Amino acid sequence: MKHLLSIDDLDRASLTALLDLSEQFVAVNQREIPKVPALRGKVVASLFYEESTRTRLSFETAAKRLSCDVMTFSVAQSSVKKGESLRDTVQTIAAMGIDAVVVRHPAAGAPYRIADWIDGSVVNAGDGRHAHPTQALLDALTLRRRREIAGLHVAIVGDVRHSRVARSNVKALHLLGADVTLVGPPTLLPESLEGWPVQVSHELDDVVSEVDVVMLLRMQFERQQEGLFPTLREYTARYGLTEARAERLKPDALVMHPGPMNRGVEVAAEVADGRASLVTEQVTNGVAVRMAVLYSLLGSGAPVA
Amino acid sequence: MKHLLSIDDLDRASLTALLDLSEQFVAVNQREIPKVPALRGKVVASLFYEESTRTRLSFETAAKRLSCDVMTFSVAQSSVKKGESLRDTVQTIAAMGIDAVVVRHPAAGAPYRIADWIDGSVVNAGDGRHAHPTQALLDALTLRRRREIAGLHVAIVGDVRHSRVARSNVKALHLLGADVTLVGPPTLLPESLEGWPVQVSHELDDVVSEVDVVMLLRMQFERQQEGLFPTLREYTARYGLTEARAERLKPDALVMHPGPMNRGVEVAAEVADGRASLVTEQVTNGVAVRMAVLYSLLGSGAPVA
Amino acid sequence: MKHLLSIDDLDRASLTALLDLSEQFVAVNQREIPKVPALRGKVVASLFYEESTRTRLSFETAAKRLSCDVMTFSVAQSSVKKGESLRDTVQTIAAMGIDAVVVRHPAAGAPYRIADWIDGSVVNAGDGRHAHPTQALLDALTLRRRREIAGLHVAIVGDVRHSRVARSNVKALHLLGADVTLVGPPTLLPESLEGWPVQVSHELDDVVSEVDVVMLLRMQFERQQEGLFPTLREYTARYGLTEARAERLKPDALVMHPGPMNRGVEVAAEVADGRASLVTEQVTNGVAVRMAVLYSLLGSGAPVA
Repeated sequence: MKHLLSIDDLDRASLTALLDLSEQFVAVNQREIPKVPALRGKVVASLFYEESTRTRLSFETAAKRLSCDVMTFSVAQSSVKKGESLRDTVQTIAAMGIDAVVVRHPAAGAPYRIADWIDGSVVNAGDGRHAHPTQALLDALTLRRRREIAGLHVAIVGDVRHSRVARSNVKALHLLGADVTLVGPPTLLPESLEGWPVQVSHELDDVVSEVDVVMLLRMQFERQQEGLFPTLREYTARYGLTEARAERLKPDALVMHPGPMNRGVEVAAEVADGRASLVTEQVTNGVAVRMAVLYSLLGSGAPVA
Repeated sequence: MKHLLSIDDLDRASLTALLDLSEQFVAVNQREIPKVPALRGKVVASLFYEESTRTRLSFETAAKRLSCDVMTFSVAQSSVKKGESLRDTVQTIAAMGIDAVVVRHPAAGAPYRIADWIDGSVVNAGDGRHAHPTQALLDALTLRRRREIAGLHVAIVGDVRHSRVARSNVKALHLLGADVTLVGPPTLLPESLEGWPVQVSHELDDVVSEVDVVMLLRMQFERQQEGLFPTLREYTARYGLTEARAERLKPDALVMHPGPMNRGVEVAAEVADGRASLVTEQVTNGVAVRMAVLYSLLGSGAPVA
Repeated sequence: MKHLLSIDDLDRASLTALLDLSEQFVAVNQREIPKVPALRGKVVASLFYEESTRTRLSFETAAKRLSCDVMTFSVAQSSVKKGESLRDTVQTIAAMGIDAVVVRHPAAGAPYRIADWIDGSVVNAGDGRHAHPTQALLDALTLRRRREIAGLHVAIVGDVRHSRVARSNVKALHLLGADVTLVGPPTLLPESLEGWPVQVSHELDDVVSEVDVVMLLRMQFERQQEGLFPTLREYTARYGLTEARAERLKPDALVMHPGPMNRGVEVAAEVADGRASLVTEQVTNGVAVRMAVLYSLLGSGAPVA
């Protein structure tokens, strides 16, 4: 594996192998000194055309724990402002001797073009509405540490239409044998679901008592201005995981959110902090998953030290 | 000691022990390679809700000299902008496996709340008007390297009302046996000084020839707009350490300033650069003090290598 | 050598020695682990008063490969905003125990003043129109790896008047025995060329078929607003290295650009990506040259490990 651009790059076996490798890094991260020399001397550059401190820190923490050097290329301060093309920016970074670029970009497909332009590895940290494969991997790892995924019923709730998190999770969960139901108003679901291995519901109340996992998506407030839903209050009334609704969950149901959460909108604060919530574990496992991805792309293939 | 949130966390013995430990790091910092492996693999995150390159660099330099990995969480670029709560931000950082958070926040008390929310250690790098304990520690170290602090007479001059530096220094200097006089116009002194172990003067001229140390505070220009003093020129005339006034100092008196200085306002350039000034030593000792704090919070208790 | 402020600090022998040392780092950078412990424990601060992610990343990559610790002092976020003087900012950084400061500043001569103010080494990463010595060194290294420089004919094309890159390159190329022709409209050439060891042409067409190297300068669009040239289209028509013009180059002629490029303005995209272009090699060699500079300033003088 040279790049990780989409869950499409993986089949069930390779996805499972990545999760198994991630488990080794979960163990590394619980050591007194959570660091291995595996990628000493390798240079990882983070190139974020959309700011996301959360995802960037997770990747950079992962890289440092593998003993990589990390270069942060903050686009807000860069010559991109001077009108340099993406290609020139990326090739310049690559020419300094970078082994992997972790890229987030508002345009779907940008990481594919970058992978064509440079010799190093590319990790997609989110491109437009297209894909966010490490989020899907960390969600799968977090779920798998609690349940056998095959046969689980997972509801993905909210603005699926604009969500790369949803797209990558649908693919990963399907590969691992889960049943997925998308839940949201028609305006926030994809215009066509042809080829998506999912069921659809327009009422969270219709599915909340049946599912094993509720995966909430972040509501972007600009969708309201675009007229895609009337008011936040109404959104919460129909699609928020309120306390009342959470009481109807199965006793062992699990709640996930990729963060950052809008407490009181898509999820009640009490539910986010409650017993069913995997939110904190998702963040913790994110570091291990990203260590596994970087190790797979840049490592020698030797066992983790 | 798990956190350092205020000088109130310390008594005379523990404060003195921290200063003694700081001396060991002063010595480390004078080595050819000023670095020890003491905290290898530990991760320190700096989380500054008010920008202060000076303080942040000092902490990050300290952490790197102890061989920590450092994560810089720059709030200006973070999901805080997306409306995420302080609690979610902090718990997310903590979930990535951070051992200590160095936090600056405009709200007094914020570091206490953070300490409740996470498992790791918290160092207060300044919260509102409340406290800036490492500044008081580095001031005490700097002074102690020149004089026996017990019995010294220290004037703290300027906008004490809004100053966390003043509050922490009053406490630390009192613990170590110094006599403190606050100097400033009534509008810039606290409304009540009940329980403060200090004397008060409204004229720098009344005390300048008697004190052993003049500790100047930075004048925030917005105070003028708030009507708390008439003009900078008038402020300097009564409370600035001008050259003329500095000539009335005792021959061995010392001058301190936490920086950044407004030269020509609270201190004349010639005085800031003069023989009596400890300004540069304060900065240098700041790194050693912050190494001592991090070492105390995160170290094994073994002697410094 | 304590500082590198200008190519004027070098004579032919010391410049050649720096290039020879750079070759050793080119070799280091081709190793599986491109890292040497040469400067372990040394601290390098980057202090950029003009943002240049490209140059800053190159220096920081160089420092990390020498095992330095790197402190990034981003002026946009600093107390400079609070009105602190350059001198206080620099002396504060120095007091934290920095071994070298890499500085970019819009004012010509700023690095000289900094060198007076601090004990550590200063590397000029570009000051006003004055100098950008490491750019000239990396250009010389890149050229020397392809040709014997003595006797080469180099055209430097574009806005020489405002270019520190041109000034430093004229000096370095002259020291190494090349013949330099400046090419541009009179409004973009220096008002006086007294003492410059160069020839001048106002038409790229007059020299393009004779020269061995075309070194293009970045066109700053604000020059148009200043009335120094009529339109970009007209600029490109007379001074751009278009595909048509590139066909008139000698078969073995070389094309250089310090980046970031305005494709379609000073250089056609096809030429920038063509066989003659050294643009990517310039970036790659930049890291090696900056390793050589830091090693010369901060190293023990022992051979590279």
